[in-house]
Formats: sequence, C-alpha cells, structure tokens
Amino acid sequence: MAIKMERRHSVLGKALPFIDSRQKVTGKAEYLADLSFPGMLEGKILRSPHPHARIKSINVDKAVKLPGVWAVITARDVPANKFGLSVPDVNILAIDKVRYVGDEVAAVAADTAAIAQEAIGLIEVEYEELPGVFDTTQAMEPGAPLVHEDKKGNIATTYHIKRGNVDEDFASCDFIFEDEFETSLVQPAYMEPMGCVAKYESNGRLTIWTSIQSAFQARSELAKALGIKASDITVNVPYVGGGFGGKIWIRNLHPICAALAGKTGRPVRIVLTREEEFLTMRPRVAAKIKLKTGVMKDGTLVAKEARIIAMNGAYSWAAPKIMLNMAMRTDCLYRYKSTQTFAALVYTNTVPTSGFRGYGNAQMHFAVESQMDMIARRIGVDPVVMRLKNAVRQGDKTLHGWNVRSCGLSKCIETVAAEIKKGHDKNYDPSGRFRRGIGIACMNHVSGNRSGDNFDGSSATVKFQEDGKVLVFTGESDMGQGAKTVMAQIAAETLGVPLKDVIVSPFINTDVAPFCLGTYSSRVTTVGGNAVLRASQQVKAQLLILAAKVLDTEPNNLVIRDGVVSLIDNPEKKLTVAEVCRIGIRTRESAGLASTVSYDPPTEGTDADYYGDYSSAYTYGAHGVEVEVDTLTGTVKLLRVSAAHDVGYAVNPLGVTGQIEGGISQGAGWALYENLVLKDGFIQNTSLKNYVIMTIKDMPEITCHIIETNDPIGPYGAKGIGEPTLIPTPPAIANAVEDAIGVRITSLPITPEKVYRAFNNSIKEEG
Amino acid sequence: MAIKMERRHSVLGKALPFIDSRQKVTGKAEYLADLSFPGMLEGKILRSPHPHARIKSINVDKAVKLPGVWAVITARDVPANKFGLSVPDVNILAIDKVRYVGDEVAAVAADTAAIAQEAIGLIEVEYEELPGVFDTTQAMEPGAPLVHEDKKGNIATTYHIKRGNVDEDFASCDFIFEDEFETSLVQPAYMEPMGCVAKYESNGRLTIWTSIQSAFQARSELAKALGIKASDITVNVPYVGGGFGGKIWIRNLHPICAALAGKTGRPVRIVLTREEEFLTMRPRVAAKIKLKTGVMKDGTLVAKEARIIAMNGAYSWAAPKIMLNMAMRTDCLYRYKSTQTFAALVYTNTVPTSGFRGYGNAQMHFAVESQMDMIARRIGVDPVVMRLKNAVRQGDKTLHGWNVRSCGLSKCIETVAAEIKKGHDKNYDPSGRFRRGIGIACMNHVSGNRSGDNFDGSSATVKFQEDGKVLVFTGESDMGQGAKTVMAQIAAETLGVPLKDVIVSPFINTDVAPFCLGTYSSRVTTVGGNAVLRASQQVKAQLLILAAKVLDTEPNNLVIRDGVVSLIDNPEKKLTVAEVCRIGIRTRESAGLASTVSYDPPTEGTDADYYGDYSSAYTYGAHGVEVEVDTLTGTVKLLRVSAAHDVGYAVNPLGVTGQIEGGISQGAGWALYENLVLKDGFIQNTSLKNYVIMTIKDMPEITCHIIETNDPIGPYGAKGIGEPTLIPTPPAIANAVEDAIGVRITSLPITPEKVYRAFNNSIKEEG
Repeated sequence: MAIKMERRHSVLGKALPFIDSRQKVTGKAEYLADLSFPGMLEGKILRSPHPHARIKSINVDKAVKLPGVWAVITARDVPANKFGLSVPDVNILAIDKVRYVGDEVAAVAADTAAIAQEAIGLIEVEYEELPGVFDTTQAMEPGAPLVHEDKKGNIATTYHIKRGNVDEDFASCDFIFEDEFETSLVQPAYMEPMGCVAKYESNGRLTIWTSIQSAFQARSELAKALGIKASDITVNVPYVGGGFGGKIWIRNLHPICAALAGKTGRPVRIVLTREEEFLTMRPRVAAKIKLKTGVMKDGTLVAKEARIIAMNGAYSWAAPKIMLNMAMRTDCLYRYKSTQTFAALVYTNTVPTSGFRGYGNAQMHFAVESQMDMIARRIGVDPVVMRLKNAVRQGDKTLHGWNVRSCGLSKCIETVAAEIKKGHDKNYDPSGRFRRGIGIACMNHVSGNRSGDNFDGSSATVKFQEDGKVLVFTGESDMGQGAKTVMAQIAAETLGVPLKDVIVSPFINTDVAPFCLGTYSSRVTTVGGNAVLRASQQVKAQLLILAAKVLDTEPNNLVIRDGVVSLIDNPEKKLTVAEVCRIGIRTRESAGLASTVSYDPPTEGTDADYYGDYSSAYTYGAHGVEVEVDTLTGTVKLLRVSAAHDVGYAVNPLGVTGQIEGGISQGAGWALYENLVLKDGFIQNTSLKNYVIMTIKDMPEITCHIIETNDPIGPYGAKGIGEPTLIPTPPAIANAVEDAIGVRITSLPITPEKVYRAFNNSIKEEG
Repeated sequence: MAIKMERRHSVLGKALPFIDSRQKVTGKAEYLADLSFPGMLEGKILRSPHPHARIKSINVDKAVKLPGVWAVITARDVPANKFGLSVPDVNILAIDKVRYVGDEVAAVAADTAAIAQEAIGLIEVEYEELPGVFDTTQAMEPGAPLVHEDKKGNIATTYHIKRGNVDEDFASCDFIFEDEFETSLVQPAYMEPMGCVAKYESNGRLTIWTSIQSAFQARSELAKALGIKASDITVNVPYVGGGFGGKIWIRNLHPICAALAGKTGRPVRIVLTREEEFLTMRPRVAAKIKLKTGVMKDGTLVAKEARIIAMNGAYSWAAPKIMLNMAMRTDCLYRYKSTQTFAALVYTNTVPTSGFRGYGNAQMHFAVESQMDMIARRIGVDPVVMRLKNAVRQGDKTLHGWNVRSCGLSKCIETVAAEIKKGHDKNYDPSGRFRRGIGIACMNHVSGNRSGDNFDGSSATVKFQEDGKVLVFTGESDMGQGAKTVMAQIAAETLGVPLKDVIVSPFINTDVAPFCLGTYSSRVTTVGGNAVLRASQQVKAQLLILAAKVLDTEPNNLVIRDGVVSLIDNPEKKLTVAEVCRIGIRTRESAGLASTVSYDPPTEGTDADYYGDYSSAYTYGAHGVEVEVDTLTGTVKLLRVSAAHDVGYAVNPLGVTGQIEGGISQGAGWALYENLVLKDGFIQNTSLKNYVIMTIKDMPEITCHIIETNDPIGPYGAKGIGEPTLIPTPPAIANAVEDAIGVRITSLPITPEKVYRAFNNSIKEEG
C-alpha cells in the first residue's frame, strides 16, 4: 500500500487510525450481543422448512407449557400491517403461507436461548407443501405457481428507461455487439449477525437496540410494522460489526422482538445465528443481463441497450430500488449517445434479495466493463484507450441528467493502467500451466441519493463542554467504515481543536441524534460530513464572538489553532478554547456553544422518468488487476491490484485505503469464490465453512492511488468511497482472465470449474 | 385541599397528574437499584466505627483472598485529591485519620453484595482512638481536640454581616428582646437510598448512573475528586426517589464506586443501606441562634442582631454556604432598618451537615418567626397585625439588595390568619386535658441563587420529531417534585400542542442534556422553565416560518392550537403540526425544528459583602396551624394547616399543592418528631424504626391557597415552591403550642417531654 498526497490541513487529510480502533482491537467495544438488561429474555424464531407451503395449523400448546417460556407468538399475536421497503408485501409473521425457506412463522421468548430453542422445536405446524418457483426463468413461465397470488406472472416490478433515439443510433453504428452476463447471489457476510433488543419503557415508549445502518429509517419502518408512531420508538445503535448494505433496514426479527417484549413485559433479545443469517440475510440481487452495444470503428461508444431479469426473492426488500440503479447508473460512466433498458424483477420462492455494497450498480458494471474489453478486443482497440475515449469528464451533463461537478475518471484509468502494465510480465509462462494476465475496469457511483421524499440530508449536533472538549452527535451509523473518525476530523479541523478533544458519541440514539437518513449510497462523508462541518462552523462562530469580547477585538481578527484562540496579528493575545468555553457555558455570557444543523445537498429529486441530478457528488475509480490462472485446475489467483479512486479529497487516507482494500477483498470474493447455491429453493451452503469468502491469505498485493478532484459540494471537497471500491474488481478480474488464457467467463463467480471447462473447450476448438 | 384560581391557558395552570405518575404508581419507573449491567459487581464500603481515631494500619489480605472478591481499595488506591463543596477537606477514603462514625476507610467490589459485605468484615484496621468533639460548645473550648489539625479552634468558617447602623437603631427602640433558639439534626430521609453505578466505557470515558439533583455538578465534582476532566465523565440520572437537598451533590461513594470500576475493569454498583444513610446522609445544619430584636411600641421592627453557632460536622459539605442563608435571608422578610449577624460554623466529630429543603433559611425562620410571636405577645400587639405592619412588599429593595419584583406576603398572611381563626374554637377545652391553640408564621425564600460563578442559568433543548411529537431535554433533575411535568406543560403551552405529544426525557445524561446547574434553591421552575420556554419559542418560530410558506402567508398571521396551525382570520386554512414537521424534517425545506437555548436570569452576583439581587424571584408564604396539646402527656397533635404561598403563577396547581402538603409533612416532622440523637459522637437512632418521620396518620387537614403575583421574570409569571412550604411550619407550630398552653418551646423538636416539663413548670410557677 502506498499513498502519495499533498496535505493542506492539520487534522484532515492525515492517515490517522480510527478513533475507536483501540476498543475494537482490544475487544472492549460493545456490540449488540454484549448488551444485557435486568430481566432480559432471549427470543428465537421458528422458520419455514419449506420454500412454498400453506400453513394449515399451528399448535403452540406444548411450547407454551415448557418451563422458562414466557411467550409464544404467531401471526395472530402481531399487527397485520404489511411492511417492506418499496412494496409492502411482508408480514411480521407468516399469514396462511410461507414463501421461502427461513420465512418467519412463530417466535418464543424464554429465560434462556436454549429454552427458547427447545420451545421452538415443540411448536407443531401443519404445512401443505406447494409447488414453488426457484429461478426467474421458471417463475416467468406461463402458469407458474404464484409467490403472491396478487402478483401476476410473479412480476415484482418492471422498468423501461430510454434516453435519446436508440434505434436510430444503433443504425448508425459500425458495430453492434450483443452479449449476456449473469451475476450470482452473494451475501454481505458481515461479521456480526443481526440482532435486536426490544424493551418497553415504563412510560410506554419502545426502545430498540440494534445493529443497523440507518437508525431513523429503522424507527419509521418499525413504527409502520407495529402500527405506532415513530416518535414513540427510540432506536439505539451500538457498535456495528459490518453492514455492507445488509443492515440498512430492519428485518422481521425487529417487530418480532418488539412483539415478544410487549407480550412479556420484559426486555427481549434476539440475535440471529449464522445459519439463520445464511437463510435470511438479504443477498445481492442476482441478475441476468443482456447487453447490446453499438460502437464506431475507433471505439467510440454510441448506443446501449440492456435487458435485465433479476431475482426479487419471496418479498420485496430493496430490490425494486436496486433495479433502478442497475438499469441506469452505468449509462453515466461513458458518453453514450443513447441508451435504453428493459428490466423486470421477478418473485421467486427464495430468500429476498436486497442492498449490498454497490446496490445494483456492481452487477451492471460486471456486464458493461466485461463487454468493454470484449468489444475492444473484437474491434482491435486498446481497452484502456477505448475507456479514455468514452469516459465522462468534469462539466458533463450525463444522459440521465447528472451534473458531473468533479471527475477523476480518466486519471484513475491512466494511473492503474500504467501501474498494472509496469509490473506485468507478459511472457511469464505463456504456454505453461500458470498463465498471467492483466485487466482493468472502471466505475462510477454516487455520494448520496435523493430519492423518495425530497430529502437527502443529514443533521449534526456539535457542542462544546465546559472544559473545552467537543461532543459530536450524528445519526449516521459507523458500521466499521470509519464514519466516527471522519466526523471527528471534520469537527476538529473546522473548530481548530486537537482531534483528541473531539468525542463522537459511540452510540446512536434517535431521541438524541438529530434526524438523518443513515449510512447507504456512500453518502455519510459527503452529506453527514457537511452537516458536521456546518454545525462546527456555527459553534465556532459563537465561540469567536465570545472570545472577541474577552480579547477586546472582532471575531474576524481571531484564529483558533490547536485549542488556542489568538489574534491573527498578535498571537500572544490569546485564550485557550477551554477558557472561552467556561465563560460561554458557566457564566452570564452563556452562549450555549452548541449547534444543530440540518444540511440537504443542492441536488434534485428525479422526475417521473427517473431523470435528475440526484447525488451530491459522483465518484469514479478504476482497478487494474493481475491474475495467475492455473490451467490445470482452473484456479484463478489474484496477484496484484492497482486501485485509483477519485474521492474528491481524502479526509483520512488510511480510511480510504481501508475501504479500497476491503472493497477489493469483497469484490474478489464475489468474482472468484462466493455463491449461495440454491437447489429447489434450498440454500445448500448455510455456513462459512462451505460459503467461501476471501481471507487474508487470498489477498493480493494492493496499491492505492487517491485521486483528489476537490468536489465543490463535498465537505473540504470530499466524496464517498464506501461502495465504489468493490465495483470494478469483478470485471477487471474477468478481463484479466481472458488476457491470461483467452477465454471469457461471463457469469459470476469465476469458479475453477468454469475456467477449466472454458479453457479446455477453447483448446478443443483451437485444436 | 381546596384550590381557587382563575385559568387563562390551555395546558398551563391545570391541576394535572404528573406525566410519570403512572410509572411510579405501578412500580415500573426505573430507579438506580433497578439498573444492572453485564458483568456488574457490587461494592461495599468499610466505615469507621470510631468518631475520632488514628488509622495505624490496614490489612486487606484476608479480604482480597475471599473467593468472589475483585478488588479491595484503601486510600492508597485512590487519588489524593481532596474534594468537597465550599472547602476541599474530604478524602475519597480516609488518610491517617477517621473523623466521624461512618467515615469511609476502605471498599470492596465483589460478585455479590453478600460477598462484598463479608470481605468488608475481613479487613483488619488497627485504630488508635482519639478524644473527639461532639457538639459545638465543646468543640470551641480552648484546647479541645482538633478535627482537622489545620483548622484552629475547630472553626470551619465565620461571617459578620452588617447592614445599617445597628447600634444607633437599637438605641432608638422602645423595646429590645433577646431570646435563644436551637434547631436539631434532621435528615432529608428521602425514600430512595443513594447509590451509584460506575462503568469505564471502552473509549476510556467514565459513565456514572446515580440518583442526584445536579447531574452537571456531580460531573464536575467527581472530576475534581478523580483528577480527570469533567467532559470525560458522563453522568446519567434515572428516576430519583426524593432528594430534598440531600442529593444535590455527590458523596464519597461516587469516587469510591468509580475507583472500584477502574480497578476491576467492570461496572460496579454501590447502593447504600438505610443504616449507612443514617450514618452518612447529610443532615440539616443544627444551629444555636441568639436573637436580639429592637421594636417600637406599635410593633414596628427596627433592628435585629443574630449570633449563630452551627455544626459543620467532620467535613465541610454545603454548611458554609448554608450559614450564609441562615445569617441573612430573614433580614429580607421584614422591613428592618438595620441588621447584623455573627455566625460561626464549627467542626465536630460527627456526620457532616449540609443542604436540606430550606437550606439554612428554615433554621433562622424557626428563631425569627418564634420570636415575632413572643415579642407581639410581650408588647401586646396582634402577631398578625405586627407581621403585616413589617412585611416587605412589591417594589421594596431589601437591606441585602434584593429587588422585590413580586410579593404576595401580606396576602398570604391575611389569608391564613383569617382561615385558621375561622375554624378555631378558642374555648374548646380551655382548662382541660386537651387544649387547642393556633399560630401563624410566614416566610420568604428564593427561586434560584446566583452564587459562585457568575451563572445561575439553565439550558434546554426542544425539538420536533418527524411525526409532530416534541422531545424536551433538560439537565434539571426531577426528584419527584414534578419538574418533568412542569417542563412538559410549559413546552406544550408555548408550542400549542397537546401535553401528550410532549416527551420529556425521563433520564438525564450530561452528554445529551445541555448544561445546567441542577435542582436546588427552588430554581427549576423559574430558571429551567425559562430555558424550556425560550427554546420552545425558538422552535415554534421555525415551525411558523415553514407553515407560513406552505400556507402562503406570514408567520404572524398564524396560530397553533391543539396541534393545528391555522390562519388567525381563516381557521379553515390549516395544517397539522405533524404535517409541518414532516416537511420541516424530511424534505428539502428541512429546518431541523430543534433549538437549544441557554437562559440566565437578569440577576446579580453578590458583592464581597454578600450584597446583591441574586435570585430570579423571591417567594413568600404563610402557614396558619391549629394544634391540640395533651397536657397530660405533652403530646402535640397538628390538627389543621392553612397554607398560602405566593408562587407567582401556578403552572400545575396539583404540583403546587403536592409541594405544600409535602413541605408541611416534613416541616411538622422536624417540629414534632425527627431528631438524630447523638451520644459521644454516635448516632443512637440509625433506622426508620427509631427515627420517627411523619406518616399519613399524622397528617393534619390542609387547605392550600395559591397566591398568584405574576412575577415579571418567572416563566408565565411562575416562581419556585419546592422549599418554601417547609419553612413556616415549625415556628407556626411553636406559636400555636404557646397559644394553646401558654408555654414557649424554643428548641426543636417540640417533644412531649419538653412540652410536659415546660407546661408543668409553668403551672408550678403560676402556682
């Protein structure tokens, strides 16, 4: 890892360890499973063993009688309010039918988890098994069983999005290429399983502790599910052990936990087992993508048409929204003249799919960035040159209405292309067992997303304490990505105090934290950071007015550095920030020295046709990879990755490179290893023993390049980096595999079996 | 109980049950002892069995080895920072010497309280007993043993405060009377014993949960004791089971608990037993008061001189500050021409004395209001007439510089005098066994107290939630007196929303609540209420700007009533508050709809001679009582009390009458029953079995009169009522006893023994 940057600030832009690293490394940080409350019960959930069945009867008598059991609940005991994100099609506990293996049927609260589990085993459910639909093709066949009786053809949603005159443009092209791609079901596989503690307070309000990315969305969704007011719920978020999009929203366990707490009058905790997570953790929306791309001889992209069929699973989680990203976002990566996409999202009797780092954009990038190389190869243009020729640039307004206010895409491409080529030995073992190849892929993404309500904002509270230390409250979750550190750095830099004097509340509490939307869409640094920046500026202004009074000058003549307020032109005339705070908080001059600011970026909601400049900033990046393919076994080994990302401005380069390394790891896992194997609706690999994720021994050598384009909206020019780092990895690997052994794998994961077969077929064909 | 008032508001001024009554009555409210944390240990404290002794050695070996013991600490294990309020003379654990029975010597943390207690018994302390001083007379004798070697003559502090030309004025009087009075050691006797949970968070900060009246003062005192920064501590205050001044500040148990948590790395809880509370709960400062008062024939008061000797106990808690109130406050009750007070506070080898409802003012009122009746009787003036003749009135500037901005003193006196006379049968049994008498006494007090730092302020955060409900955060403790309800009413009235839509955080957390000084000096309604009022006004203004935009009008044209914003002259044009909140929080229009305001009343700190207008408002009241004295046994039965209090404006008449009834109960307990009996430094009554407090069966018939004077500073005109209600009760009872049987009891409590002896002596004298 190498970082080369110029620095212009005192706290920002420094590669600092996260402010909570020590707690995490020493195991002291308190995650959900570490919490406990007096009288707390443990909850367990009975889940459907069938992918599709009618519930004929449920008998809980034996379970209720088991000593230590406090409550057994079924659909009858919970509100019948359907919830869900895009389409409300989910019940808290199954009514009449179960729709996938893992669907929630009943739940128990007991003195211990073991008793609760035993009681679960005593619940007698009589099912009538129904034929199911287990993949999108089967689900769309005429007469196929319906997952939801009211969803004809098992269609959850469809989109047709068209920009420009696609037909005319295709007619004008020198070449048109059509290719098909397929992405697999993969899991966010966060380290910490989801869990929840629910407790009804003595004043009747419901308190929830849960490991979640958006405390306020959790609150409003839970209110919807339970049929109560959002403000009668307090959501607390302790340390979060990873989310990657899988913890943006609540799941059934949350209203179930609340219902158990309500019925027992005791705090109840539910922590999912890893197996339950494998059955119910929302995987990435699997998609079949047909791409038709028209180009000119010189590599200029002209028109693009995509047809996507994607798997929604049994209920609509975020997949309908994800489809929109999948359908559109890559259209803004290059300067296409016209594009159109037909997309259909299909119900199946399988686990609901949802958001996972990249949020649809990653799937489409696999297709588009794979096809870019295929086309370049076919028309004899260098794929790097072809990308540079078509790349969007700062000042562009894209087909979907994005204003590209900052863009380092070309620089990212050039940087990684040069670097990955430099270290690559083309003739390493050109006809032997181990062949090496390089490939690049690039990507665009967002930093925030104005969707739904006309709001993409965040709020923050920044306040001084009487002894000069600063408290920062934000509702944006730190799921391990370093949000707290970024907020602390922005506050410290803006206020002119040492980083150690800034305390960012380690817990989120929705009563306390000002309203915000949460951690998704790579929005926290830009949008949440802007709220912290503005609240800090306001508090600083209050402090300077006060200091100016004491120092008998004007606020404009003062500067704060390292916790000391002094006259710009007479640094000996000074006060410590602590001294000013004491005056500002504990004396007649009391100014409060606190500020809460709500910030909403100057973006637009999209129109009915999804057109609009909806993100605070757009991010760009490119990965160059080198792989070694074992032609005997088909195994692909990722040797090196050169990654360049336009983050606008790196608030914390160590955090940025951490994101890059993590994204590469997760992207490479998706590309090479991970896959939820479904057989007739049953997931075959429900543990980390047979669902293989990247480990440290699989990690390549990584070089990180931070490209700074100083975004005009981002705080101090910063843009998001959470999701972008995963996106280009799979297509870059696929491109490198072809470079190494001349075969193209168009479906994920790129397993040894696929590689072996394709390579041997290619040899046979050649032979 | 009868309340007669006109009402002019919709939520304010209504006799509403407290918003947390239901939780308390059902036992659901969570007090300190209800809290528990994973891995929490229980702490116990070893206390001195001697009033005065040198510690020769401490051997903790056996205690440390007891299974289940995690830590045993002595003075060596804790910081040597002395703490304490006025004079830092207290160590966390005794160094070298113990100074009273109960002094903290060592402490243990163990798996259970029983193990901790067993370990306490295994700690071997070798003491060398020292002669001690157990009352103020003995302590001031030449050559008396010294409690603190550096405090000569055992004098903790002295005051001499003089206004006007006392000598000249005494010379001009028709009469001069000198009398002596004595008040006893009595306990706040709150229901919930003090306790503390201390926990070091994974980020190194210390979190404390404790039942306390001032969270922020607890934080800064604890920081001082532990030698860390206040902002590295978070103090949480759950429900508080009474305080009455006894829980304004931390006690040794707090830093002890923190030290045990630090040493064990686990949360530690210490909850005092009732016996420990009897040994260490800070009692009311006992005082011997010599009063010399000069009057004219017509009853006009001219000059007053007081000489006070009061008991500080072994360490200086709040007694030095309390002495100042005792020395001065009654000088502002009547229009004296001149006054002077000599006061000395004396160390003794007894439990430290400190603040208790009335805070010194109650002791002096017993003397002054007893003597008023004695003088009236001697010079043949009706005591009611004499009081009315001398009473301060609105517009007065008192001897000590108070600006009397509102004053219902005369009305209070007239009201209770008329009422208590009306029901009184002068000839009930004039020479029989049961004699009845009536007496009145009046009082003045403060609502806030600008002392120490130039700050007597409070802050509040008021914010709307996305669905229109309101959250109020204040750092002012509700110790049962109804502060939360008062704050909720003020917010609801000001904002125009129903009371049920206002949530006042039931827990205080010093990170979350804005800075304030806490619950003492009867300041919460006036000062804290003003902060909530102002924060509500600011948030309302934000809301109206937004509503005006949507309704296409100006904010001035809008009114909010019952959660609906409408045009004043067109009520059909309207929006609900919830609708405006959704716009104001979740859309581009986001205004945050939150405000934190710091409020400091326009009062003055006193000068070096203690002169100044230091309270936000001054309160006045009078009690008329009727007693029945059993001349055979000396028992005094309190039959009726007529109470009138000038509260400015009654935010919640039910809360006001609750305070009046509670104050009468506590005042009558002090007057008739309660007394910590000391023998050679040992408290003889260390349980509620032999320390007798008032119970429901002792309660008299009470009539409450709420006098409203619409104070110009108090929120909606309101002033404090917490302390005033206790103050006039003891002198009124003493006055009524004399009225009944013709003897004067000048020392508290007015026990059957004292009454019996005095009555029989008076018969003998007469005989």
